[in-house]
Amino acid sequence: MPDIDKSLIIKNISKHITLDNNEEKHFLSILKPQKIKKKAFLLKEGDICRATAFVINGCMKSFTVDKNGFERVLNFAPVDWWTADMFSLISQRAAILNIQAIADTQLLLLSKQDQEALYFQIPKFERFFRIIIEKSLVAHQMRVLDGLSLTAEQRYIKFCEKYPQLWNQLPQKEIASYIGVTPEFFSKMKRNMD
Amino acid sequence: MPDIDKSLIIKNISKHITLDNNEEKHFLSILKPQKIKKKAFLLKEGDICRATAFVINGCMKSFTVDKNGFERVLNFAPVDWWTADMFSLISQRAAILNIQAIADTQLLLLSKQDQEALYFQIPKFERFFRIIIEKSLVAHQMRVLDGLSLTAEQRYIKFCEKYPQLWNQLPQKEIASYIGVTPEFFSKMKRNMD
Repeated sequence: MPDIDKSLIIKNISKHITLDNNEEKHFLSILKPQKIKKKAFLLKEGDICRATAFVINGCMKSFTVDKNGFERVLNFAPVDWWTADMFSLISQRAAILNIQAIADTQLLLLSKQDQEALYFQIPKFERFFRIIIEKSLVAHQMRVLDGLSLTAEQRYIKFCEKYPQLWNQLPQKEIASYIGVTPEFFSKMKRNMD
Repeated sequence: MPDIDKSLIIKNISKHITLDNNEEKHFLSILKPQKIKKKAFLLKEGDICRATAFVINGCMKSFTVDKNGFERVLNFAPVDWWTADMFSLISQRAAILNIQAIADTQLLLLSKQDQEALYFQIPKFERFFRIIIEKSLVAHQMRVLDGLSLTAEQRYIKFCEKYPQLWNQLPQKEIASYIGVTPEFFSKMKRNMD
């Protein structure tokens, strides 16, 4: 794996916990690099999610497809974010989400098995994952409340604040799926905002 | 505190971690019981959330008020659930949520300070809170997706499944605020479902 730079994940971890040299070496040794082409899937609805993924470069999106065939985007994972189908990861039941690359992407995968072992080998990883899951919970709580009380235009503004690196790079239909409107409504809304 | 039964919280904890006698004693010693009357607030928007609350009996709701004065219910916390404004608890910034009793309620409060100390005194609490926050994250992710793809009627059915103890006890307006419709729309919808 000479071509994946792992310093980013160490920097990400060290925001919340401090690893000594041996711990860092062990942690890096259990990560599996994966390159994934634009539009390829890391996980499909119905599969079992067997790993948490960290994005080194590129971008992933997590979404469901409703009964009318519309994509409903739960979240995006740009560089320096973690992603997984948390329901499937913790229950080892069929995934609800599809997780797809929206650009050529490099990931580091931490398998469920290695993650569970890690909690015993280096217990401070319990702390690390508790803290990042707390942050993710807050983000999803905000998103529930935004969905209940904001207009589509306000939800678009929140999207731009949350993903400053994405708002002018993603296809409009992806953003429309995230804020919960049709692509047609989204273009009309954008024209009115300009 | 002779009148608050703490066995429920020990049972709740022991779903995920095992405490020895000393740990259990220490944990119980740092909890502060609080009785709260129906309609009283544990937390108001703008306050700082300084504790996580466990519901011994009664029921709490967490909500925001939108600019038109409508309540938007994020979640309910019936018996055996934990509740807090996670954003405010972790950042110690102004709360986004109001947390109000919807029945006379008995709580056990774990202060932020004691919780942070607990992680060092009894590290397996990192594990406990990681696991319950993971479950809460899954619930809120489902709620985001339901908001994006389900009809109000389908969201009501999901509410009934999630809170089997509440659906026939709560005032209709509370349920309407949770599923994101007006009370008028909700009664009309319910009549059509019967």
